[in-house]
This record gives sequence, C-alpha cells and structure tokens, in this order.
Amino acid sequence: MHLLMIGGSDAGISAALRARELDPGAEVSVVVADSFPNFSICGIPYYVSGEVTHWRNLAHRTTADLEATGMKLRLDTTARRIDVAGRKLLVTSAGGAEELVSYDKLVIGTGAVPSRPPIGGLDQLGPAEGVHLLHSMGDTFALIRTLEESASASAVIVGAGYIGLEMADALTTRGLRVIQMEQLPEVLPTVDPVLGTLVHAQLTGHGAEVLTRTTVRQITRARDGEAGRLRVEASAADGSVVTRLADLVLVVVGVRPDTALAAEAGAKLGIRGAIAVDPGMRTNLPDVFAAGDCVVTHHRLLGETYLPLGTTAHKQGRVAGENALGGHREFAGSLGTQVVKIFDQAAARTGLRDHEAAAAGFNPVTVGSEADDHKAYYPGSHRITMRVTGDRATGRLLGMQLFGHKNAEIAKRIDIAATAIFHGMIIDGLSDLDLSYTPPLGSPWEALQMGAQAWLREARHH
Amino acid sequence: MHLLMIGGSDAGISAALRARELDPGAEVSVVVADSFPNFSICGIPYYVSGEVTHWRNLAHRTTADLEATGMKLRLDTTARRIDVAGRKLLVTSAGGAEELVSYDKLVIGTGAVPSRPPIGGLDQLGPAEGVHLLHSMGDTFALIRTLEESASASAVIVGAGYIGLEMADALTTRGLRVIQMEQLPEVLPTVDPVLGTLVHAQLTGHGAEVLTRTTVRQITRARDGEAGRLRVEASAADGSVVTRLADLVLVVVGVRPDTALAAEAGAKLGIRGAIAVDPGMRTNLPDVFAAGDCVVTHHRLLGETYLPLGTTAHKQGRVAGENALGGHREFAGSLGTQVVKIFDQAAARTGLRDHEAAAAGFNPVTVGSEADDHKAYYPGSHRITMRVTGDRATGRLLGMQLFGHKNAEIAKRIDIAATAIFHGMIIDGLSDLDLSYTPPLGSPWEALQMGAQAWLREARHH
Repeated sequence: MHLLMIGGSDAGISAALRARELDPGAEVSVVVADSFPNFSICGIPYYVSGEVTHWRNLAHRTTADLEATGMKLRLDTTARRIDVAGRKLLVTSAGGAEELVSYDKLVIGTGAVPSRPPIGGLDQLGPAEGVHLLHSMGDTFALIRTLEESASASAVIVGAGYIGLEMADALTTRGLRVIQMEQLPEVLPTVDPVLGTLVHAQLTGHGAEVLTRTTVRQITRARDGEAGRLRVEASAADGSVVTRLADLVLVVVGVRPDTALAAEAGAKLGIRGAIAVDPGMRTNLPDVFAAGDCVVTHHRLLGETYLPLGTTAHKQGRVAGENALGGHREFAGSLGTQVVKIFDQAAARTGLRDHEAAAAGFNPVTVGSEADDHKAYYPGSHRITMRVTGDRATGRLLGMQLFGHKNAEIAKRIDIAATAIFHGMIIDGLSDLDLSYTPPLGSPWEALQMGAQAWLREARHH
Repeated sequence: MHLLMIGGSDAGISAALRARELDPGAEVSVVVADSFPNFSICGIPYYVSGEVTHWRNLAHRTTADLEATGMKLRLDTTARRIDVAGRKLLVTSAGGAEELVSYDKLVIGTGAVPSRPPIGGLDQLGPAEGVHLLHSMGDTFALIRTLEESASASAVIVGAGYIGLEMADALTTRGLRVIQMEQLPEVLPTVDPVLGTLVHAQLTGHGAEVLTRTTVRQITRARDGEAGRLRVEASAADGSVVTRLADLVLVVVGVRPDTALAAEAGAKLGIRGAIAVDPGMRTNLPDVFAAGDCVVTHHRLLGETYLPLGTTAHKQGRVAGENALGGHREFAGSLGTQVVKIFDQAAARTGLRDHEAAAAGFNPVTVGSEADDHKAYYPGSHRITMRVTGDRATGRLLGMQLFGHKNAEIAKRIDIAATAIFHGMIIDGLSDLDLSYTPPLGSPWEALQMGAQAWLREARHH
C-alpha cells in the first residue's frame, strides 16, 4: 500500500502523519515542491519582523522529525501530471529528471497561490525591483533580501486582510514606515467595520498611514531623486489619484486555489474554482483525495464555500490520510474561526456576521457590547469589544466577533464561542455553561455570557 | 408581588437583579446581614495582598448601582425566622428592632460559613490574638487590622485549597513569611497530585514553607521571647509533632452550607446538609426558593453533590429570581469548573478526575500530556501541562485539568473543555472543533486538541 501526498504544507503533511500514525506498515511519500516541508507559513510575518530569529524555527517539524515518523520526503520535486487510470504521478525531481511514481492512493494538497490583482506594472516588476508577493518560504527569502540589501525604509502594503495587517505590524516592528492601501471601506474586512475601525486606530497609532477605499492602479520605478525606489498610484473613492513613494511594495490581497494539476487530471471543481470534495475529502477521481487550500470548504452554517485556513487544512489532511487507508472519517466542517494579532491587540471571529447570516437565510440580529477580560479591581484588566450575531426567530448563536488586548484571552474566548456554535447552542443557553472564574483571570459571568445577556436584552426590542 | 431575598452575596443579588430585569413592576427587597452587598468575596486575597488598593473596589456593584435597578436593600439586617404559612420573615434590623416582613416569594441565599476544624485553642483564640477565619468582609477587616496593628511578619495558613493558596500568594506578596499546612498528601487536592506538585513548587519557589500530610492539633499563645505571637502544633504523617511559630494563623479549610434558618422553617436538607432544591431552585416549602452556597449542587455528571462556587451561585440565583416571578428556568448543572492563580501560574479543572469518574460508574482513563500555549518560535511561549480524563468504553470526555503560566490562557482553555463536556463530546470529537489560530496566540491544533489526540493514542494501550 503506497500513499502518495502532493504538497509539503499543512494538508499533505497532516495526511502523511495521520496515515503513518494509524498504520506503521503503510508506505507514505510526500512530494514537496521546495525544500521546506511542514513550514509554518502563518509564521512568516514574525520572521520578517525579527521576532523569530531564524527561519528554520518556522518549521513545525524538522525534516528529520518527519522522516522519523517513517514517511519519505521527495524535496524540490514538482508534481507534473496525474495518470488517474494508471495510478501514477509524473514528477520532475531537483536534478530535472522525470519520474513516474506509482501510488495506491493519492492525496492532493497543492494549496493556494497568491492572487495577482490587475495592477499595472505588477507583471514587469518583481523582487529584484522591490515588488513582492508573499506565500512561500522562497517569497520570504526574496523579501528579506530586499529588506537587507536595499536597506528599505518604507513600504506600501497592498491589502489589509490578515496577512496585510500582520505584515504592517512586522514591517513597522522592523523599523519601516508603512503605507497600507485597502480597496474596501475599512481594514480587516472579515470583521464588522466597527471592529475594523479599532484595528485601523492601532495601525495609525503605530505610525502607519492607512488609505482605505483606495484601489492601486499602477506600480512604476520611481524617478531619480524621489524618496523611494517605487511609485504607487491608486484611485481614491472620489476618483482622485493618490501617489505614494516607497522602497518596497508588498501585494497581499488573498489567494486562489492551486488546482491546475487536479483539473488537468479531470477533477471536478466547485465554488471559486476549488477542487470539489465530499466530506471524506474524496475527489470525483478514483483513489484521489484532496485537502487544504486547494479544495472547497464545507462550512457548518453555509454549506459549500471557499475559506482557506491552516487549521482547516490540518483537519482535512488528517481526514484524507485516514480515509486513504480505508477509513471513514468526515471533515466536520468549518466555522471560519480566525484570530489575528495587530500590535498589542487581537481581533477574532467565528461563525457568521450579520449580512452573511442574512444571505444564508437566517433572520439575524447583531448586538455589540463590552466587558472586562477580568475583574477590573485586579490590576491589568482590559476591555473586550464583542459583536454577537443570533437568529431572531430561534435565538440560535450564529456568530461572534471579539476585539481586545492580546493578553485578553481573545483567541480562546472565540474558541468557546466556536464550540458553542458547533453544538448549535442558543444564545440564552450560553449563560448555562459552567465556565471558570478567578478575579485575575475572569468574571463570575464570563465576558461571552455578558455579551449573550446583552444580546437577549436588545434583541427583544428589534 | 413582593419578592424577598435573604443574602446580599452572589445568589441573593443575582436573584434580585434578574427579577428586576424581567419585571420592572416587581417589588424586590434584599435582606443583607452586613453593609457590604454584592461584594466579591473571591477578591479578598487581592485586597489583602495590596493589589486591590481599596476594599470598596471589591464591590461588583455599589449600593447606589443596586438601588438604581429598583431593588430595596435592607442592610445590617439579620433574618431570624421564616413563617412559611404566613409568608413572613422575622428580621432584626441594625438598630435592634424586630420586624415582620411579608413576602409573596422568598429566595434564601444564606451562603456558607467557614468550617472550624477540631483544633485545640481555636475556640479560645480569635482575631484579637491573630487567629483568623476568612469568609466575609468583616473577617477581612479583622485580618487587615491584625496585619497592620501587629506588623505581622509571618503566618501559618491551615489548609491548601483554593483560598489557602490564594492567601499564601497574597501574604507572600505583602511581605510575610508563609508556612502552609495541609492534612492531605499534596496541596490543591482538587487536582491530581502531579499538578498539585507543580503548585507546591511555586509556593516553595516563592519562599513559603509547605508541610503536607500535616494535621494541625493545637494553637496557643507563644511564650515570651519566642519568634512570633502564636505557636502551632501539628502531627506529621509519621506521628511526630511539628511546631511552628508565627504572628498570624489563618484557618481556611473549606465551608459548610449555612442552613439554620431554612432548616428551622422545615426545609428538607440534602447531601452535606445543604438545602435540597429542584432544578428550578424550589425548596420543599411553598413559595420558598434557595440558591448558592447553601443548597445542594446538581452536577451534570454526578447528579446531586455539594460544590459551592461563585459562578454557580450567580446562575442559581438568576434561575431563582426568574422562577420566583413564575418562570420555568432550570439550573443546567455544574461541571465543577474552577481556576486558581498561584503567583505566576494557574491551575484549572472541569468535569471529573479519574477516581471521581470511577466512583460515578464510568470506566475512566486519564492521560497526561504537554503542549505549548502558542507556537514556540514566537517569543513568550509557555508549556501547558494537561490531564485528560475520558471513558474507555464510550470515548466520552469526562474531565480536563490544566496547569501553566497565568498568561497561557489556562482559564479560557478550561472553558473550551467545559463547553465540550457540557455537550457530551467524545474526545475524538475535540479534533473536529474549528478553533482559532495565529502563531502568537495558539497552534494549528489547539493545545486541548493535542491533549485529546495524546489521550486517544495512549488509551488504545490501556
């Protein structure tokens, strides 16, 4: 039994680990496009910032750790073509040699590639000129080279989603002057604008210039004597042209699934062009599974969507690895649970926001409230801003958004909410949960329970 | 409609707040034995330590806040006798006058009183001599008086449960030399000894002397010239006598329900002599509810037990207040979720430990493991020690215990586990939960999920 995984990131490695854990007799190989298997892509900003002192520390496990589990790694190897009928994968290895690798079961974990927005000059300018996309360790090394060799003092970041914000934090921490440009009306558009505004204030409070409703049109080399190597031209909301000069431009506007290999082999694609899979991570192709950022996401409240996240890739990979061995595990579904740290604050969400819930057929009400992370009489307490979304008719908890200090246990609080939504709890039921309390670390009613009680009081009047 | 609550702490005030919230037309009065309604008893150690600068800050709400909700407070008023048939409560007010107060519904929230262990001298020596129990604001003021007036330099703390440990932290922080004596084999006997040992190390690491398997027998005044005002004699495990001198002795060995008033009125008592109530917090007496530390606790895994906690008192009081107005709410049950901070560490538990689960008819296995609170490559990570208890036959999650740094989100992590147990999750199911991740605040598999996966690996071999 030979299990072959394509992709050395979360999904592929999780599948391989799970298969080796369940059946130490299974032969498991992983085709890795570069020489950085099992690297924490989410950790890149902290290496760029200097907080992680060596890029090798970003490895979840070393190559030796991985090989000790009994899996075989084929590094610097590109997957070229899947022969579904023959159960063979054509690869090109580091030396350029082509090889046909036989498999019994295949797991595709090709991940995603950065979106390239329609910006003039983006195809002509690259890392050598200081224009960067950021997704792989290779991209990271190129960015570090630009930062070190050209002694960049300023950066335009195109996009203010999770990665854009983390990079604004990272480059500011590294000492650069940051200009952040976002097409939408507020930064962090995955949370309600009232929370995005709080994130926005963090950016400006740390010296970044933030331009929202601003669409980047053109990147060119700056002229001699201009204060920066690159010139970025954008359209503001009123149609006027905004120009900024910087040494570095980072384009981080999201990703799209990398599906070329699978599609060419006949894999059915689904929403946003991601590979269609059943809850067992099976594609429509015999003996071919897929997992991670390249596949559609089953969402517990939305059905099929596309929501690439590392946590989801780990879970899906684990399911694929188990099922490739003949198991019957199913991916239980995403709730889109996410958290991001921006300077000293954190923002998190799980489930649906108001407009998402309405689009999904619910009858939502969203109520904002605040509570202390622990009893305010004990030193060091912080306020938490909450947004609770529930269904008017059933009282069901549909979503939660939190913003507060990075030490205000925002991440684990959103996890409590995610666990509640997972079980279909009603908002009134949150007050029944037996949660912990000691004055330095909480309140007799946990903040989320106070947010739930605020929702119940207000929702009555809607 | 006149609702009368006896007790100004968590249960009584929660009942009054809930009643006023639901029916602004209801007349609601609270009989408070002292002049400190709605004080945070759990916050007392942080006032003693000096971290809370004024005792007034310990009030969850001020008297004015409470009265603004429309409730009437009868401070310094002692409830003497309930006339169940006549629906009247005999009280003695501050001035000594007796009064009969009519009610339509009564909520008893008389709480608990500190246990007085059989220690020689405890009945003869009191606050004036430096011997203290600690439960009320009055006890707190007496303790502070001893600390300030006699310039205490050392303290023996009898008991190493939650309050004993918090007071060891507090008195050490205040500059005293602390000697902690505990009858049982390890401190914090509400968690497994392997975690208690970690707490023990915190105490000794901060200069406290910790004597376990040590039963205090006698407290006497020290002789002239001895280094301390008091002499404490105890028996060690081997039968030898241990003697310590100190300026202050604090006896904190747990509480018992304060039920005299209810019992005299004919209330049925249950386990540990606490007032028997149904899930709607109704006693066997007509129109009489009871809630908080004076009543039996419905536990979701154990049935009826006695587990007095502030969080539970808040929930039960809220239920009693709603039902006193004719509602039909039920207390959903405790899981014994608790957390305590000891110096820079925190210990928490929810659900059952191994021996408790076995006694309750489960077939438990408990597996210990460790994980980082967030990705170790990001600065400031801490190890979390976990104990996961599950049922061998069903795989059901029965209990979780955590120990780690106070910034390692121990409290909210135990709450995730509590939410999972509330819903009867199996341990394998924890890996299906969509929990948040960013490297500074977590891992792609949340620590609890790693603990669950460790349980599954080990439980196979049991």
